[in-house]
Amino acid sequence: MQPFTLTASDGRARAGRLTTGHGTIRTPCFMPVGTKATVKSVTPDELVGIGAQVILANTYHLTLRPGTAYIGERGGLHAFMRWPRPILTDSGGFQVFSLRHTLDLDDDGVTFRSVYDGDQVRFTPESVAQAQVDLGSDICMVLDECPPGDADQATVDAATRRTHDWAARARAAHLELRQGAGWTCTGTPQLQFGIVQGGTSADLRRESARTLVGIGFDGYAIGGLSVGEPPEVTMPMVRAACDELPVDAARYFMGIGDPLGILDVIDAGVDMFDCVLPTRMGRTAGASVPVDVHPRARINLRNRVHMDDDGPILAGCRCPACAGGYSRAYLRHLLLQQEVLGLRLVSLHNLLVLLDLTARARRAISAGSWAEWYPSERARWEPRD
Amino acid sequence: MQPFTLTASDGRARAGRLTTGHGTIRTPCFMPVGTKATVKSVTPDELVGIGAQVILANTYHLTLRPGTAYIGERGGLHAFMRWPRPILTDSGGFQVFSLRHTLDLDDDGVTFRSVYDGDQVRFTPESVAQAQVDLGSDICMVLDECPPGDADQATVDAATRRTHDWAARARAAHLELRQGAGWTCTGTPQLQFGIVQGGTSADLRRESARTLVGIGFDGYAIGGLSVGEPPEVTMPMVRAACDELPVDAARYFMGIGDPLGILDVIDAGVDMFDCVLPTRMGRTAGASVPVDVHPRARINLRNRVHMDDDGPILAGCRCPACAGGYSRAYLRHLLLQQEVLGLRLVSLHNLLVLLDLTARARRAISAGSWAEWYPSERARWEPRD
Repeated sequence: MQPFTLTASDGRARAGRLTTGHGTIRTPCFMPVGTKATVKSVTPDELVGIGAQVILANTYHLTLRPGTAYIGERGGLHAFMRWPRPILTDSGGFQVFSLRHTLDLDDDGVTFRSVYDGDQVRFTPESVAQAQVDLGSDICMVLDECPPGDADQATVDAATRRTHDWAARARAAHLELRQGAGWTCTGTPQLQFGIVQGGTSADLRRESARTLVGIGFDGYAIGGLSVGEPPEVTMPMVRAACDELPVDAARYFMGIGDPLGILDVIDAGVDMFDCVLPTRMGRTAGASVPVDVHPRARINLRNRVHMDDDGPILAGCRCPACAGGYSRAYLRHLLLQQEVLGLRLVSLHNLLVLLDLTARARRAISAGSWAEWYPSERARWEPRD
Repeated sequence: MQPFTLTASDGRARAGRLTTGHGTIRTPCFMPVGTKATVKSVTPDELVGIGAQVILANTYHLTLRPGTAYIGERGGLHAFMRWPRPILTDSGGFQVFSLRHTLDLDDDGVTFRSVYDGDQVRFTPESVAQAQVDLGSDICMVLDECPPGDADQATVDAATRRTHDWAARARAAHLELRQGAGWTCTGTPQLQFGIVQGGTSADLRRESARTLVGIGFDGYAIGGLSVGEPPEVTMPMVRAACDELPVDAARYFMGIGDPLGILDVIDAGVDMFDCVLPTRMGRTAGASVPVDVHPRARINLRNRVHMDDDGPILAGCRCPACAGGYSRAYLRHLLLQQEVLGLRLVSLHNLLVLLDLTARARRAISAGSWAEWYPSERARWEPRD
């Protein structure tokens, strides 16, 4: 049985349902990032309250601290962090390959040094599949090789080939683990997604998608984009990959968290996406607002202009910061004083903006009004300067 | 009309009601400290949820950032920080005199340099009364001189005399402000408490209490204690002061936040107390537990012993951390990784322990069972090593 059901489509945009071991996710959906088994500063209850359906956690970080086998012994990530809904874990590929000067790569896997104690750590397609079984996530990702954004074509070609080889091994490892008695510590099944690579070559992206579909996964991610390249480069790659991916499988774009980017990938046929941006912006006093509130679609709450502003970040917003009556003046004071409540409230606002945007996109697609809704919503978030 | 009503007493211990502009406080009561207009990391809703009746904010810190007149223009502290219940503001005396090498003291007031920009700031009894009117707190404190804990008797004598002079001036300023059209920005009345000083001399403490009662305040605090001296020195001072204070006025011991100390000052006849300890401990991974859980009545959640502990900080505790199902193992991970959620959850636990302890003390006094309850509760919190 396919875990994904397409319920509506409008142009390339899709609405659907993805069934996991911890419930069904309605797509399109934004996934808040809880890197170290916590979405920074907020509780699971607060996440449920703002409409988060699924969160992402990070195999790389959890391998180093506190350890994936350790979390497995604690009953898995859901029990450990008290999150009752689905969890997607990334494979750690992106993080490992960002350490490019200290890693030792071969066809079998990759070795790197722990940032905590210098210990050597080795990731292989098989070890990463096992680590995610230990975590008990609902959706696990294959280990991929992520070359630098400025890599030459030969490097990208080689990395894409290796990603395909690793994907086949990861799938075999996952399918073997599925046969095991204690498959996941939570007792619920796990889905595995492949990752389309191929740099900025549309042909290579298509080939990568076809190769992964040939292996056969429960869903497909598009990786190695949104790493600094302009949207004019990103979007054709997304469309090229989506062209080759099956209609009846979920599609996940890795790492996009600004309203414009989210709208664009939904329009290209993507169902799921994640980013640290809303919580990272929260820690640096940045709050998302539509362009009618600020032409840059973002305000810096530390700025003096907010000093005498007794209004909320965004009038009518139902997030705990705005609906709670906290003023820009107060938030500015908290952020300038590095008070934790400030970053907590702004993070909740930014998360709600994206969750709400995605929920409205879902409704527009289901209602068959995407073609009108998308450009008008896009105009609300497109920076004017 | 007296704002305080004694509803029960049992030995020296008292239960009562203090009526303020933002509601009635049932005493004895513990006041969480929100130094910079935020009880670190937690929201007003969470504070109400764990039973906080009144919080404390700090005139010294708020004078420097963001400014007391500024907060007044925003509608006062209640509106600024969204706290609907009573607020007590201290005078800043304790903080200013902790800067002893950089301050310039005379009979009229005290001048010090801002830690932010080196600007000279001057506090007088009158300016501090005005600052607290600007903040719109429900209970304001007089400016007092707090000599170092190791000061000689002549210094303590002089500081106590100056505290009395300043108290008379602060009272006159406050009574004059009361006549003003816009007395407080919130439109609600403000109470003013005097502060008993006198170092570690019982005679001077008695004289100080009598002098303040002669001036006449809405309530009386006991200051300059709990600054490092042993309880054998503190407690006779508390009892000496309480002997001279009127039965029908609230008594506030400034700065005590461990369960034993709270029980002891209640037993000596104190109604209100505050301390940063529960939130400060939260930030350093310390959690309060009775001695049957740990002989030191405190655990350090960073310790390795909690690594495999899937139980809560304290079984049966109804705080958001324990009742929320967060394990010691998970809290340890969060605290070691300096994740904000860790200090937030542990702060809530520590605050609830004190709020719950105080609520139970109130019930024991009201039920006439203090004489039995106090020693048995005390034994639950007295460190065994």
